[in-house]
Amino acid sequence: MTDAVSPLAPKSFPSLPSIAGVRLAAHACGIRYKGRPDLLFVEMAPGTTAAGVFTRSKTCSAPVDWCREAVADGKGRALVVNSGNANAFTGQAGARSVRHTAEAAARVVGCSPREVYVASTGTIGALLDESKITAVLPELHARASEAAWAEASHAIMTTDTYPKTSTRTAEIDGVTVRIAGIAKGSGMIAPDMATMLGFVFTDAALSAKVLRKLLARGVDRSFNAITVDSDTSTSDTLLLFATGQAGNRTVAEATDSRLKDFRRKLDEVLLDLAHQVVRDGEGASKFVTVKVTGAAGARAARRIGLAIANSPLVKTAIAGEDANWGRVVMAVGKSGEKADRDRLRISMGGIPVALNGGLVPGYDETPVTAHMKGQEILIEVDVGVGKGKATVWTCDLTHAYIDINAAYRT
Amino acid sequence: MTDAVSPLAPKSFPSLPSIAGVRLAAHACGIRYKGRPDLLFVEMAPGTTAAGVFTRSKTCSAPVDWCREAVADGKGRALVVNSGNANAFTGQAGARSVRHTAEAAARVVGCSPREVYVASTGTIGALLDESKITAVLPELHARASEAAWAEASHAIMTTDTYPKTSTRTAEIDGVTVRIAGIAKGSGMIAPDMATMLGFVFTDAALSAKVLRKLLARGVDRSFNAITVDSDTSTSDTLLLFATGQAGNRTVAEATDSRLKDFRRKLDEVLLDLAHQVVRDGEGASKFVTVKVTGAAGARAARRIGLAIANSPLVKTAIAGEDANWGRVVMAVGKSGEKADRDRLRISMGGIPVALNGGLVPGYDETPVTAHMKGQEILIEVDVGVGKGKATVWTCDLTHAYIDINAAYRT
Repeated sequence: MTDAVSPLAPKSFPSLPSIAGVRLAAHACGIRYKGRPDLLFVEMAPGTTAAGVFTRSKTCSAPVDWCREAVADGKGRALVVNSGNANAFTGQAGARSVRHTAEAAARVVGCSPREVYVASTGTIGALLDESKITAVLPELHARASEAAWAEASHAIMTTDTYPKTSTRTAEIDGVTVRIAGIAKGSGMIAPDMATMLGFVFTDAALSAKVLRKLLARGVDRSFNAITVDSDTSTSDTLLLFATGQAGNRTVAEATDSRLKDFRRKLDEVLLDLAHQVVRDGEGASKFVTVKVTGAAGARAARRIGLAIANSPLVKTAIAGEDANWGRVVMAVGKSGEKADRDRLRISMGGIPVALNGGLVPGYDETPVTAHMKGQEILIEVDVGVGKGKATVWTCDLTHAYIDINAAYRT
Repeated sequence: MTDAVSPLAPKSFPSLPSIAGVRLAAHACGIRYKGRPDLLFVEMAPGTTAAGVFTRSKTCSAPVDWCREAVADGKGRALVVNSGNANAFTGQAGARSVRHTAEAAARVVGCSPREVYVASTGTIGALLDESKITAVLPELHARASEAAWAEASHAIMTTDTYPKTSTRTAEIDGVTVRIAGIAKGSGMIAPDMATMLGFVFTDAALSAKVLRKLLARGVDRSFNAITVDSDTSTSDTLLLFATGQAGNRTVAEATDSRLKDFRRKLDEVLLDLAHQVVRDGEGASKFVTVKVTGAAGARAARRIGLAIANSPLVKTAIAGEDANWGRVVMAVGKSGEKADRDRLRISMGGIPVALNGGLVPGYDETPVTAHMKGQEILIEVDVGVGKGKATVWTCDLTHAYIDINAAYRT
């Protein structure tokens, strides 16, 4: 492991604004890490609505089980997040640990345990002693503040090399509302689920139903379109909370035209956070955008994109700065989706490489190789059978990925 | 890249017997590699029957297209294999190149081009100049011999660190028949297709129909149950030829009880070759057997096994000799197949690790860690929902994989 920040990290981070009705505090409990915050407590104002999406893993963690039930009510008053221990595959003891944590937070805040959300990431299969968490909740509640975003975004990190934050303002009915989000994740990232952990807050007044629809839509083009290593976490959790303190008249339906600007800004926050996760992909040295067009449908296009983005041979070629478009052809072929080999078009860095089942006439690899030496790689593929399109994002596969993951527990 | 032989290579290689009716010759054409054989020519006696299985890639190579058509007739008189250039994604020129090669071999042997099989592996997307091949076919035909197995198995290698060979004898009706096979492959290996290239020959008299059935069955438990890196080749080809020279009365039906011993020995040859491919997995330092039981069915069991075997996080943990069974839990969860998290049982090296959704009581990792330091790793998982079972094989993911694949073309 290394302390170096990913070379793909954003050059600057926004400072997140206060979200009226959201107070945060972080603490170093020593659950696994020493001398750094590993616990985040968030209190939200009464009336806060909530929505969430979770991992599709069949072996999901105890906190995911808990949150999935709690979010059905659409209400949120508190969030407790720890890093270093995933509380996954911990059986009945794990479920008990989450319940105790939620009950303790509920007592502190003065709400129902079902309005408390719990999220954990880190080692799988180790029992989590929640007393380290519950013991400090009263103190965290006492000192929580609207300004503690930096501590919050650090406390949820595991192998992340930088905290992930994003913010936008939007207008609803002429009222300015704020959106602020934090996320963590750098390995065990694969699509068709949320990132490992993401928490997005807004002061807008939105029904839980609206939040659910906006989240489902936004996730599809952001967290569900990224991959680092094709592995699916037991703990993926993305929660969206709206405190309703901004002063807009509550929006109750996702089809309400007043949502137009907010929807766009929320999508931007989700995509920004998702990209930051990829940019912190374990060992990543290049950020890769894969655009697929000409597929049988959008779903097929995404599957083809992910076959390319998940291919170890494509990812190692990119790490080696090798314009090995033949491996892109291979990955298209293995996706299982319809593609016309003899109409396939590939370009890299915007430069046409392959056309109609072969190299472009007079192909000169020089500019493509130059593109491969950069940090931002663009691969575009048209599979020649329809109008379906999708964009997915990934990173390369390097020695550092192996260093990090061969040594994770030792 | 390195010249070192995989540490997992078999300690000794069998010397393959003559197969009556099979003559082989190899040659260094300089297609890509310098100073080593890169072309194999095989002539088979009139009356030889043939069967094949091929990649399911939608972007398969020109030789695969050719062989898939040719094998429909069930006859085989010649085989031409080159290494260094896959003749994949080469459009009409690629198809022409294969046809010219088959026609040239047919002239030399005196048969129909449709009795000639062509296989190519190596770089994708580069045009293959078949004149280098066709020019030497007369000479190869003249000097082909029943004994040239060593040259043959070397000529088909690309990034392989050792040639793959296997042999058995079997009895049909009291007549001794021989089976000899060669294979190549060490990356772009994934299940649900043949290995990159495998060629198995027997002197038994068997109908093409029998060959097809035996091959389909044997492949399912061998080449379709291995994975190195989850990537699917455009070129996977496995062919089985029977010359009928051994003297047994021809077996026309796969249900014929006289096939019992032959079927078993053929399965052994296929499994042996498949294991040798995994043992030569690019960068492999450990050979990993994953046994799944308790799944909803055999198909579900294999999918769970492959989710474990393909997980970069599981594979890097094994490379790091880390008994990180939590990642096995993760991989079971991501397979998408039914599994009961709270009845999951995992053992490593035969030592129980997890039981009923948690660590075994009093778990001592010492013996498991000792097992992980060995070269042969065994992971057993019971997912607790049914009686389906499957075994799959893979290798670990190491720095050497990245060295090999980040530098392949440069």
